[in-house]
Amino acid sequence: MRSPTPADRFSFGLWTVGWQARDPFGDATRPPLDVVDAVHRLADSGAWGLTFHDDDLIPFGSDAAARDKQIARLREALDETGMVVPMITTNLFTHPVFKDGGFTSNDRGVRRFALRKVLRNIELAAELGAQTFVLWGGREGSEYDSAKDVRAALDRYAEAMDLLCGFVLDRGYDLRFAIEPKPNEPRGDILLPTVGHALAFISRLAHPELVGVNPEVGHEQMAGLNFVHGIAQALWAGKLFHIDLNGQRGIKFDQDLVFGHGDLLNAFSLVDLLETAGYAGPRHFDYKPSRTEDMTGVWDSAAANMRTYLILAERAAAFRADPEVQEAMQLAGVPDLATPTLAPGESYRDLLADRSAFEDYDPEVAGNRGYGFVRLHQLALEHLTGAR
Amino acid sequence: MRSPTPADRFSFGLWTVGWQARDPFGDATRPPLDVVDAVHRLADSGAWGLTFHDDDLIPFGSDAAARDKQIARLREALDETGMVVPMITTNLFTHPVFKDGGFTSNDRGVRRFALRKVLRNIELAAELGAQTFVLWGGREGSEYDSAKDVRAALDRYAEAMDLLCGFVLDRGYDLRFAIEPKPNEPRGDILLPTVGHALAFISRLAHPELVGVNPEVGHEQMAGLNFVHGIAQALWAGKLFHIDLNGQRGIKFDQDLVFGHGDLLNAFSLVDLLETAGYAGPRHFDYKPSRTEDMTGVWDSAAANMRTYLILAERAAAFRADPEVQEAMQLAGVPDLATPTLAPGESYRDLLADRSAFEDYDPEVAGNRGYGFVRLHQLALEHLTGAR
Amino acid sequence: MRSPTPADRFSFGLWTVGWQARDPFGDATRPPLDVVDAVHRLADSGAWGLTFHDDDLIPFGSDAAARDKQIARLREALDETGMVVPMITTNLFTHPVFKDGGFTSNDRGVRRFALRKVLRNIELAAELGAQTFVLWGGREGSEYDSAKDVRAALDRYAEAMDLLCGFVLDRGYDLRFAIEPKPNEPRGDILLPTVGHALAFISRLAHPELVGVNPEVGHEQMAGLNFVHGIAQALWAGKLFHIDLNGQRGIKFDQDLVFGHGDLLNAFSLVDLLETAGYAGPRHFDYKPSRTEDMTGVWDSAAANMRTYLILAERAAAFRADPEVQEAMQLAGVPDLATPTLAPGESYRDLLADRSAFEDYDPEVAGNRGYGFVRLHQLALEHLTGAR
Amino acid sequence: MRSPTPADRFSFGLWTVGWQARDPFGDATRPPLDVVDAVHRLADSGAWGLTFHDDDLIPFGSDAAARDKQIARLREALDETGMVVPMITTNLFTHPVFKDGGFTSNDRGVRRFALRKVLRNIELAAELGAQTFVLWGGREGSEYDSAKDVRAALDRYAEAMDLLCGFVLDRGYDLRFAIEPKPNEPRGDILLPTVGHALAFISRLAHPELVGVNPEVGHEQMAGLNFVHGIAQALWAGKLFHIDLNGQRGIKFDQDLVFGHGDLLNAFSLVDLLETAGYAGPRHFDYKPSRTEDMTGVWDSAAANMRTYLILAERAAAFRADPEVQEAMQLAGVPDLATPTLAPGESYRDLLADRSAFEDYDPEVAGNRGYGFVRLHQLALEHLTGAR
Repeated sequence: MRSPTPADRFSFGLWTVGWQARDPFGDATRPPLDVVDAVHRLADSGAWGLTFHDDDLIPFGSDAAARDKQIARLREALDETGMVVPMITTNLFTHPVFKDGGFTSNDRGVRRFALRKVLRNIELAAELGAQTFVLWGGREGSEYDSAKDVRAALDRYAEAMDLLCGFVLDRGYDLRFAIEPKPNEPRGDILLPTVGHALAFISRLAHPELVGVNPEVGHEQMAGLNFVHGIAQALWAGKLFHIDLNGQRGIKFDQDLVFGHGDLLNAFSLVDLLETAGYAGPRHFDYKPSRTEDMTGVWDSAAANMRTYLILAERAAAFRADPEVQEAMQLAGVPDLATPTLAPGESYRDLLADRSAFEDYDPEVAGNRGYGFVRLHQLALEHLTGAR
Repeated sequence: MRSPTPADRFSFGLWTVGWQARDPFGDATRPPLDVVDAVHRLADSGAWGLTFHDDDLIPFGSDAAARDKQIARLREALDETGMVVPMITTNLFTHPVFKDGGFTSNDRGVRRFALRKVLRNIELAAELGAQTFVLWGGREGSEYDSAKDVRAALDRYAEAMDLLCGFVLDRGYDLRFAIEPKPNEPRGDILLPTVGHALAFISRLAHPELVGVNPEVGHEQMAGLNFVHGIAQALWAGKLFHIDLNGQRGIKFDQDLVFGHGDLLNAFSLVDLLETAGYAGPRHFDYKPSRTEDMTGVWDSAAANMRTYLILAERAAAFRADPEVQEAMQLAGVPDLATPTLAPGESYRDLLADRSAFEDYDPEVAGNRGYGFVRLHQLALEHLTGAR
Repeated sequence: MRSPTPADRFSFGLWTVGWQARDPFGDATRPPLDVVDAVHRLADSGAWGLTFHDDDLIPFGSDAAARDKQIARLREALDETGMVVPMITTNLFTHPVFKDGGFTSNDRGVRRFALRKVLRNIELAAELGAQTFVLWGGREGSEYDSAKDVRAALDRYAEAMDLLCGFVLDRGYDLRFAIEPKPNEPRGDILLPTVGHALAFISRLAHPELVGVNPEVGHEQMAGLNFVHGIAQALWAGKLFHIDLNGQRGIKFDQDLVFGHGDLLNAFSLVDLLETAGYAGPRHFDYKPSRTEDMTGVWDSAAANMRTYLILAERAAAFRADPEVQEAMQLAGVPDLATPTLAPGESYRDLLADRSAFEDYDPEVAGNRGYGFVRLHQLALEHLTGAR
Repeated sequence: MRSPTPADRFSFGLWTVGWQARDPFGDATRPPLDVVDAVHRLADSGAWGLTFHDDDLIPFGSDAAARDKQIARLREALDETGMVVPMITTNLFTHPVFKDGGFTSNDRGVRRFALRKVLRNIELAAELGAQTFVLWGGREGSEYDSAKDVRAALDRYAEAMDLLCGFVLDRGYDLRFAIEPKPNEPRGDILLPTVGHALAFISRLAHPELVGVNPEVGHEQMAGLNFVHGIAQALWAGKLFHIDLNGQRGIKFDQDLVFGHGDLLNAFSLVDLLETAGYAGPRHFDYKPSRTEDMTGVWDSAAANMRTYLILAERAAAFRADPEVQEAMQLAGVPDLATPTLAPGESYRDLLADRSAFEDYDPEVAGNRGYGFVRLHQLALEHLTGAR
């Protein structure tokens, strides 16, 4: 398998390789990772970009000097390595002030503080040339139904997004927003829990064209949803602005495993979709090196994400190129679905007048058709396993 | 507890009390139920409306005479009882012809047949005075990722909806559509799996104003989602056109239990929301009397749905009226969330200039605030259990 | 509702009211709670017992003097209040040394260290008069199937349990062990994931009579299992040595809500079972006051656990006493199940010779029986909601 | 990939290839399959065995002549093909009489009838040379907690098992029982929901040596459990008497997909375990050809099960043989876990006296160890995908 290169547009969150492995039941098992080291190690491994929350780079409450110094150190490392910062995001979840949310906290002072924190970070994003600003509202939600007026919360959420969009437009920044849905954890229920809810929310904003989604493999799978279906709907809506690749083993706590280390067949289809649907954005890994790993394991796991992606891309390309697959797709009617149901120019009146569509149609015969979906899926499995 | 009356707008699907209790592992345990009996029994029990799929009333493949006779029998029963038909829906899932879906089948002939079947049923809906036409696309989906081009499927789904909307507009019917989401079962993954995905889809239709959602308690809970949150987002979007009330005990197969016989605390909050948010549509029960029940159990279970709703409505009203609850809500900041985050006329520039929002704001103090959410929820539990 | 008293045998983990609300995405929101304060506050609220992990009372790595001092402070508080320590447990999950487990770590040195840590803590448990020693193996597990030889791990687990049982027997301590199952979190998959797996494991130990289970409401519900069924099987096996009461809203991360703040109907049935099945052990609350709460909220939430238990106990007693419930139980055949299927002394030969059991039995007639389960459940709901 | 042969011991349920694809929302899409055809087609495809429920072969209620004829036809097909019947099972779930269960129905008449039906079928199993008799208690359970006394139900379940074991012993049949666990569907909650619960139940029977488990991939995964862990615990207990291989995509309704068409990485580890742990029983496929398939698809799907198993077996063997994998296993401590924690002859006193185990042990150093689990898992993924 070939090695990753910047042309693959692989990016990593600073909080991923930098995660110190503190979990709800355990203390940190790894030392802090300096951003300069992170940039160099990632660049060496073939990655293209680094992303971060404000607080990853600049600890919450730092003064201006400390802030400037960290930014300068990052810039220098980027310059040395050619790495880019394609995306930046804001932490509205770690500090106790955000314990009931940021944009939708029941406390108006918190809401205003959150907006200010994000505005400040957008300026940094623009300064560093990021194209995407991700918003994960992990604390926007509730545990108890009576404690959160969800309709009011969505009003406040929209108010915040409209302000941020207005700011970006006014400043002329070349920056788009991407909302990252998640169904739960750390809140019992999080607002905008799935790709669908986020897309629906966006459609009601003042500047919907500026806002898309940043779906994460594990987040959708925590709701038992098919990630490929979610990505397809986001693409269909023109809203796949960014993507978080990782692995999850079913409906449970957020695992953030290496990409592919969860539902491998779905990951295969995901890469197939991303590579054929014209998605040109970053392939961003938002994972956590397991708590059992030392720093060697951290860098092995970073490499594993990229390597798995490349393996899957190669397998998917071979799958698409296989004549037997193409024939099975044909038999399954997969290409037929691209044909409109109505003929060009056909109206409902024409359809009602077409006896072949109903009066003379034999549903029993059509019901006997075999679609051969299992055979098609087995061909996918055999390509994925390199057995063909 | 008072008895239900038509003013409560309780409606039942004919397929609910009429379910013969055939399941994937077992044969029918109950005899067929005639529609005339159903109308009379439901009317006697205080229900207001009856709903049905075309095939519930008129078996698939019936000739015109059989069809007309069934419709006439239904009409007569309605006239005798004063019951109404507020909603009608089409079965695009039982017959083998729909095994890969209706509007999004990989077979274009099936897609055209499905459209014709629905068009025909819309005419019946208009004729019977239904205001809502529900579409549950239970077979629109896939088991295997390669077997369904989801973007093409959404194109076809939208094509179908646009045609149906055009038809209704053209005919001048006073009828709106409501899409019923479900994450899976009978398909491995169903398109438009949640309220969010359906709302997002609707926003891209030619006539979004004609299309809303018909969320079902159990369907959202099968994805582990908070039903009250979903309903709140649908209300926020102005899209709660209809609702299916029932019970579900967590993420598993679709149970269709009696309303309240699943997550009772969430049902309490749901009734609280419906009764206070101005939802004026039907309270529609889409449940299945358990397979262990005979016809006595069927009618007992029908009554249980309505009785539980009334109990919850009474408990929710007392909860809202309790001064201690109101005080706890205040402390929790629940009403505060209705206050815009920005002052009237405040721009982002004003916010940036407000030092009290950031520079002089003490997040440590704000982080110490206790919201008292647990106490508020305990008050809800105590009202629900009649302990206050 | 009456106030709780020590006769109710309500106990709390020191780590519950003492939880500082650090979660995977957020920093602590509350100050540390001193054990002496905890004992006094709990005693004032009507609780009977305090439980703790060694590290809750005595920070990991404390020297002997610090350890002795903390124990002395605890003893004094117990003496002052009359509170007891019915259960003690050991923390084998927070320190990095346990990142791959304690008794089943892939590192033999860790396994030996873990055993020593537990042996030391058992001595403390005996000294303080605890009757139950709980073992929650939250780190005994894996994320990756190849990384853990589960059969070898179970060998090591059993080796550890056998050593601990031998120690207790040898020392003559009046102490029994209770294994606490959990399916996942913090490990991707935890060994002995459910009550069933733990019971099966215990049956193969050298001293099974010394080992039972400590089921936790949320842990079983994280696997979608019915907690009441699990408790019933544990009781059936004579193995319900202890119980952890809390709340969970379905299959997701471990929420540790207040008891009853999850599946309320199941909690009602649980209390009904505990109060009628002769369970005489502690009613132990293992919950976490939500991160949004300050110390007032902590104590409110502690009280809420006890209050909910008492409400449910009262409702369950009224349910059992209601003649209509008793009649519905009779119709449902609930008491019939206590009658052996075979007559006294009947052999399989007798059964084979009984024509009424098969040859002359009419399954169609029996298949028509209505069990009235829905009505019975509705009666439970109406008692629970105080509507009867 | 080589073709399957009878030496692979692949067996299929008659109800799998013979499933007519009737589901809770849809009618049958395929014609009935005659048992003689099934035997011939399966034999041609390289399968070794056929299994069935009594009612699959002989419709419920058949008279003696019809029964004898069907048995004779099966025998002849077996003789012609060399196929065997390694396992037989009884249907206690389809007929309405079993709507509240068989062995644990609240109706004693039903319980006696169920026992007779099973006794009769055991005789047939012995006659046909089956070694395993599977019991899937799909209707043994409840939807409502008050409707089933679970402790009484377990008494009746045990009573039934004890009678059946006594019968088999008395008759001298060379037959063992295997209980098949499932968490839910068709009942809301099924008794003995997981491998663990079944093992625990078995340990309390009169003849535990005669009873083991028949775990099914999808059934454990419907509870979010790791199937490989469950199989490992069953092997550890000496109780893996039979296995049902299929595919499931997470926690939802029972999908019964082709083996490997669900969690592929877990299937890889499962085959690795079965092939290296000395399991000599059948590799039994209990799957359902999707409803979209015609008979061509049925036979393609049957072949896919076997082919996937063989691919995974080949990949797993290469994984085990790879020196880099062996080195990674060593680093990860996987073989170390086979070493007892105590030295030969070491007592707890010796352990307490070993200062190196505690007083002189440095947990900080041990906590820094990197286990390299992620790298090991990536090696598995790369073998599985044929990338190494």
